[in-house]
Amino acid sequence: MIPAAIIFDFDGVIADSEVRANRTLAESLTAIGLPTTYEECLRDYCGHNWQETERRIVARLGRSLPTDFRAQHRARARERFAEGFSPVPGAPAFLDRLGTLPRAIASSSSPDYIAMSLDRFGLAHHFGGHVYSADGWDRGKPFPDIYLAAAKGLGVEPAQCLAIEDSPIGAAAAISAGMIVVGFCGAGHIVDRAAHGDMLRRVGVHHVALRFEEVAALA
Amino acid sequence: MIPAAIIFDFDGVIADSEVRANRTLAESLTAIGLPTTYEECLRDYCGHNWQETERRIVARLGRSLPTDFRAQHRARARERFAEGFSPVPGAPAFLDRLGTLPRAIASSSSPDYIAMSLDRFGLAHHFGGHVYSADGWDRGKPFPDIYLAAAKGLGVEPAQCLAIEDSPIGAAAAISAGMIVVGFCGAGHIVDRAAHGDMLRRVGVHHVALRFEEVAALA
Repeated sequence: MIPAAIIFDFDGVIADSEVRANRTLAESLTAIGLPTTYEECLRDYCGHNWQETERRIVARLGRSLPTDFRAQHRARARERFAEGFSPVPGAPAFLDRLGTLPRAIASSSSPDYIAMSLDRFGLAHHFGGHVYSADGWDRGKPFPDIYLAAAKGLGVEPAQCLAIEDSPIGAAAAISAGMIVVGFCGAGHIVDRAAHGDMLRRVGVHHVALRFEEVAALA
Repeated sequence: MIPAAIIFDFDGVIADSEVRANRTLAESLTAIGLPTTYEECLRDYCGHNWQETERRIVARLGRSLPTDFRAQHRARARERFAEGFSPVPGAPAFLDRLGTLPRAIASSSSPDYIAMSLDRFGLAHHFGGHVYSADGWDRGKPFPDIYLAAAKGLGVEPAQCLAIEDSPIGAAAAISAGMIVVGFCGAGHIVDRAAHGDMLRRVGVHHVALRFEEVAALA
């Protein structure tokens, strides 16, 4: 398949952010009296947008969140990000070789955070206005909506798009949108890459790639 | 949540068939020169309808399948099923206690096989005409279509349906249809139930149940 466009998930695909993000969430949850480990955050919240993450936290906590919870969590996250923040190895080089192939980001994270990160990485010029955020949507991933919005924004049929996703929830969203999906296992939070690839295969991804060099062979 | 309807996946939820089905598929693939283990079948094909299964086999084989492949495979499967075939423990009792709650089957398997199995188990009267098969559809699970068809057939909003699924592909389909999803880990092919439940949580299921008694607490 020669795709007509490539749609990238952001965290765990472009930004090597999931270790830090999930450690920070574990700290924020523990601080409000819901003791939670990094591993539990990766399992229960990773890949969801904030609305769904909040619903899941409230269900576990059994009461509503402190009204300043997101603000406090964001302040904590900003501190952590200031300690250092890198793109996923191979992502900048992969983007450089795409030429004029249309591409977009379809992410569950907030638009501000995505814009800040792309600026810091020097990668913003690759995407122009084609950054689609499911933050603020009631139906985030694994619903296909954000992927369909990205394809529509690029003016490309979903079936002609190659989507790159590291989380099972994101992979399910892209599959349901009718895209060809690469399960990507190249980010720092993925400890056992073979096992993660197996899990993504069970969700139904069409290809598994352990690093960007393998994605390049598909696009 | 008190659901307005329950929609059941079939294999691995009603029929304890996945061990035998995946062993049989491993035999059929090995017989045509594609050596495949039971574990690989569970990982790569389980949960998909025949059309997608065939696409995946062809992609791996690198040539088209023998024209009689499905017929040969079905003959082999019939022999294996004759050796013994049981419902998932707890499924008949669970169905008995549903009273008048609308319920349907949404399965990737063939209508003939589902009808034959329900007859053998003495469970056909529970479903009336509400057996929906994605076999023959180009877009099977994880696309939401079969779940949406089942909800429409029952005349119930998808968001009011509780779906019960054992495979990540099926769970992704039900989630994308907008249903509340129970990740079910009670069938015989699931060796490590805790690990399987974790995997289903990562796909985004709302609940995990290790046996039908735990599903009963939700419905």
